[in-house]
Amino acid sequence: MKLREIIERDDLPAGRAFNLFILCLIGLSLITLPISTLPDLSPGTLAALHVCEMAVTFAFTFEYIARIAAARRKVRYILSFYGIVDLIAILPFYLSLGVELQGLRAVRLFQVFRLFKIMRYNTALNRLHHALLHVREEILLFLLAAGMLLYFSAIGIYYFEHDAQPDAFRSVFDSLWWAVATLTTVGYGDIYPITLGGKLFTFAVLMCGLGIVAVPAGLVASALSEVRREHVATRAAEHARRRASDNRHGPSPPE
Amino acid sequence: MKLREIIERDDLPAGRAFNLFILCLIGLSLITLPISTLPDLSPGTLAALHVCEMAVTFAFTFEYIARIAAARRKVRYILSFYGIVDLIAILPFYLSLGVELQGLRAVRLFQVFRLFKIMRYNTALNRLHHALLHVREEILLFLLAAGMLLYFSAIGIYYFEHDAQPDAFRSVFDSLWWAVATLTTVGYGDIYPITLGGKLFTFAVLMCGLGIVAVPAGLVASALSEVRREHVATRAAEHARRRASDNRHGPSPPE
Amino acid sequence: MKLREIIERDDLPAGRAFNLFILCLIGLSLITLPISTLPDLSPGTLAALHVCEMAVTFAFTFEYIARIAAARRKVRYILSFYGIVDLIAILPFYLSLGVELQGLRAVRLFQVFRLFKIMRYNTALNRLHHALLHVREEILLFLLAAGMLLYFSAIGIYYFEHDAQPDAFRSVFDSLWWAVATLTTVGYGDIYPITLGGKLFTFAVLMCGLGIVAVPAGLVASALSEVRREHVATRAAEHARRRASDNRHGPSPPE
Amino acid sequence: MKLREIIERDDLPAGRAFNLFILCLIGLSLITLPISTLPDLSPGTLAALHVCEMAVTFAFTFEYIARIAAARRKVRYILSFYGIVDLIAILPFYLSLGVELQGLRAVRLFQVFRLFKIMRYNTALNRLHHALLHVREEILLFLLAAGMLLYFSAIGIYYFEHDAQPDAFRSVFDSLWWAVATLTTVGYGDIYPITLGGKLFTFAVLMCGLGIVAVPAGLVASALSEVRREHVATRAAEHARRRASDNRHGPSPPE
Repeated sequence: MKLREIIERDDLPAGRAFNLFILCLIGLSLITLPISTLPDLSPGTLAALHVCEMAVTFAFTFEYIARIAAARRKVRYILSFYGIVDLIAILPFYLSLGVELQGLRAVRLFQVFRLFKIMRYNTALNRLHHALLHVREEILLFLLAAGMLLYFSAIGIYYFEHDAQPDAFRSVFDSLWWAVATLTTVGYGDIYPITLGGKLFTFAVLMCGLGIVAVPAGLVASALSEVRREHVATRAAEHARRRASDNRHGPSPPE
Repeated sequence: MKLREIIERDDLPAGRAFNLFILCLIGLSLITLPISTLPDLSPGTLAALHVCEMAVTFAFTFEYIARIAAARRKVRYILSFYGIVDLIAILPFYLSLGVELQGLRAVRLFQVFRLFKIMRYNTALNRLHHALLHVREEILLFLLAAGMLLYFSAIGIYYFEHDAQPDAFRSVFDSLWWAVATLTTVGYGDIYPITLGGKLFTFAVLMCGLGIVAVPAGLVASALSEVRREHVATRAAEHARRRASDNRHGPSPPE
Repeated sequence: MKLREIIERDDLPAGRAFNLFILCLIGLSLITLPISTLPDLSPGTLAALHVCEMAVTFAFTFEYIARIAAARRKVRYILSFYGIVDLIAILPFYLSLGVELQGLRAVRLFQVFRLFKIMRYNTALNRLHHALLHVREEILLFLLAAGMLLYFSAIGIYYFEHDAQPDAFRSVFDSLWWAVATLTTVGYGDIYPITLGGKLFTFAVLMCGLGIVAVPAGLVASALSEVRREHVATRAAEHARRRASDNRHGPSPPE
Repeated sequence: MKLREIIERDDLPAGRAFNLFILCLIGLSLITLPISTLPDLSPGTLAALHVCEMAVTFAFTFEYIARIAAARRKVRYILSFYGIVDLIAILPFYLSLGVELQGLRAVRLFQVFRLFKIMRYNTALNRLHHALLHVREEILLFLLAAGMLLYFSAIGIYYFEHDAQPDAFRSVFDSLWWAVATLTTVGYGDIYPITLGGKLFTFAVLMCGLGIVAVPAGLVASALSEVRREHVATRAAEHARRRASDNRHGPSPPE
């Protein structure tokens, strides 16, 4: 009973302390990961980073086991989004024990998925998640439209530029990279049209493509403000319900 | 009677199977097209791609003939958007039979228009189409404004940069390419001002031009959400109408 | 009376023909201008372009005189926006007669202001103009905020990068060019930070700056849809008023 | 009493003149700062700039002392936003007196914070400030989401590109610079993926990231128009209140 309270009740001091401890571990883990990729680290730093990594992973392992133990429906927790995230947060470390040195770095980088553990503690990120679900259909539509436009652009620029630049636009897959960099307006400058036809085609495609970049953003923005209003209403209702529930089951009914 | 049901009724199993089959062929065709542009393909792969292409084209030819046969108003179907798309989807192949090897690649790339066959099966793309029609006037306005700004920018930067960079800004048409790449904020970096006047002019033009990129997007986004509401209402009404019609003409009137 | 009708009444055939003629001349002028900047033109083409330019300028001169003659308040027309545009459309040509060959090209490029003559014939551009006036205060605010951010960014990046790249970031004015190219997300790639401090500063400034690019766009978009609704109402009212006025003053009162 | 009126009452001639004088000094200071960074300035120009700087700083020092003297709650003014800005506007100069020549330039650049003194005189900038406060929670959310996406992108691209480009993607911190330049769509072109995996990852990350750039902009835009409506109402109420107050305390009650 005590364990469940610590893990699940963020309105009690013990639960808050536990949450804060886990958040600090996530932060520590996310800070040490980029540092460990720096070249020319001293052996002392490497040892310290390794100790950190082990300590954090053992703590997360303990947290994962504790959450399973505390969960009312254990299988449901394990298969839930957070259950899988909690598992992925520790799995790379244990896998890396059986891997030779060469693949070690790649396995370690998968610790980046510990990032998703933060989502449990942030209501705002959950709201973003709901806003995205709210405009799910529109976003799918624009991904489809974007995919079609990218495909069309890649074929078209290949038609115009392949003969002039056989190295840069070697196949449609190279053209697709150009289409991605151009239609998102990133424009690295590593690949661009030089023929008149290719430049005119780029212009036409950019005019069509600007909407694909900017339209979904407007949809998410309006959905987010809608979800916020709903969220405020829901939170107020839930707060009222919980206070009523505390009054019924709590240890000190004053009357 | 049977043929028409297969082709036009997507609420019957035969029609759904036919639609799925055509969609798979479109997908297959869109996958093989980029692969066929890869350099250094083995003869076996080339032969397999050629067989795929022939099979898909024959199937699309059969579909085109069947749709004409099934259409109540044959000429109207042939001249409709989908009729023309269905024709363009097969024409490049038959044209390539009479073309010498040199122009073959170019003709094959026109298979990209098979992409538009997808639109028949996707209500969301149709909704995007309606949203664009809804803000047609605004989009035309911004295309006009964008055209005027691009023209003005091209002349202006030519005035400032031609003497300093006679190769990069050789004529106003080169300046126009700069204007397209800059005002869409792609910025490849292949051509940019180096004189003080040119840089100041770029700044002024960018301040004006940012609206031209971003404003139409906001308009389409709001139109899309409006069209969505209308669409939901229309679909509900149509559903009711079709169910009523099925009850009248269907094989089992219960009363 | 006849002249005024031709020039000012676009609801009569003579007026419409006159407007169409002027529009064609503007189009011709805007097409010949870029062509005349092409290098290596044949003497024949140059002569044809010169004839075109003279013919268009004389026609515009006649139009300008006719508009003054037809105007009820002559001084007011001359000092109005369209009066000044009509003058600027012909002035460069007459000025170029007195200029030696060297400065001729520069003077000719000022013909680009003929572009603004189009605005008289396009109600949509006028609507854009009204939408911009509608959010005038917000746009001024963002120009001020953008100016302050650009200034701040230029000083800041100069502080971080001057020692590392004394050539690229030679003075704050070079930094300002970097700030313009970066905050508008054009990113040509001719100048960018290489120190750690400069990169962090770029990140911070970009986070602040993205709003300055995108926010005014949203404001103009919403203003434009508002102006459209107002415009539809105004046009209906004006149409009713003009029809009533025609009934009173027209040549055929039926009663 | 007189001093307080000059400094605090912008509805009296003396107050308006004082404000205008300070604004001119700010403008002068902001113009001389970039000029002083130009290389190869003549000794005469340097001397003139130095005199300007001293005069402006002494005037600002006098203003700072006068504002403290005029303030009803002196400590509160000193610790307020404008009090700190007024101090920072003069501090770099006095600090630079004690600094050797080497660090002089860096200290001088801190005069850029004089920019914030402008905010006192511009109600529109205050409105922007309120609009940002209004969507504070959403902006924090997107900064968090942007931070997470940048972190994830940096680790991911390091995974894909480190082996192919060990110099460009030396550590996750270099990858982070790539992530910033790419997700904001600046795309300088100094660092970009070349492997197939890296390009696909870039595409996926850009699709997610475009929202992070554009969504906050839409939120600020709608908040700004909301704040404007509130501001108009507040200003009207305040105007009424002040006129009423003037009638009560003013020297010439007519009744």
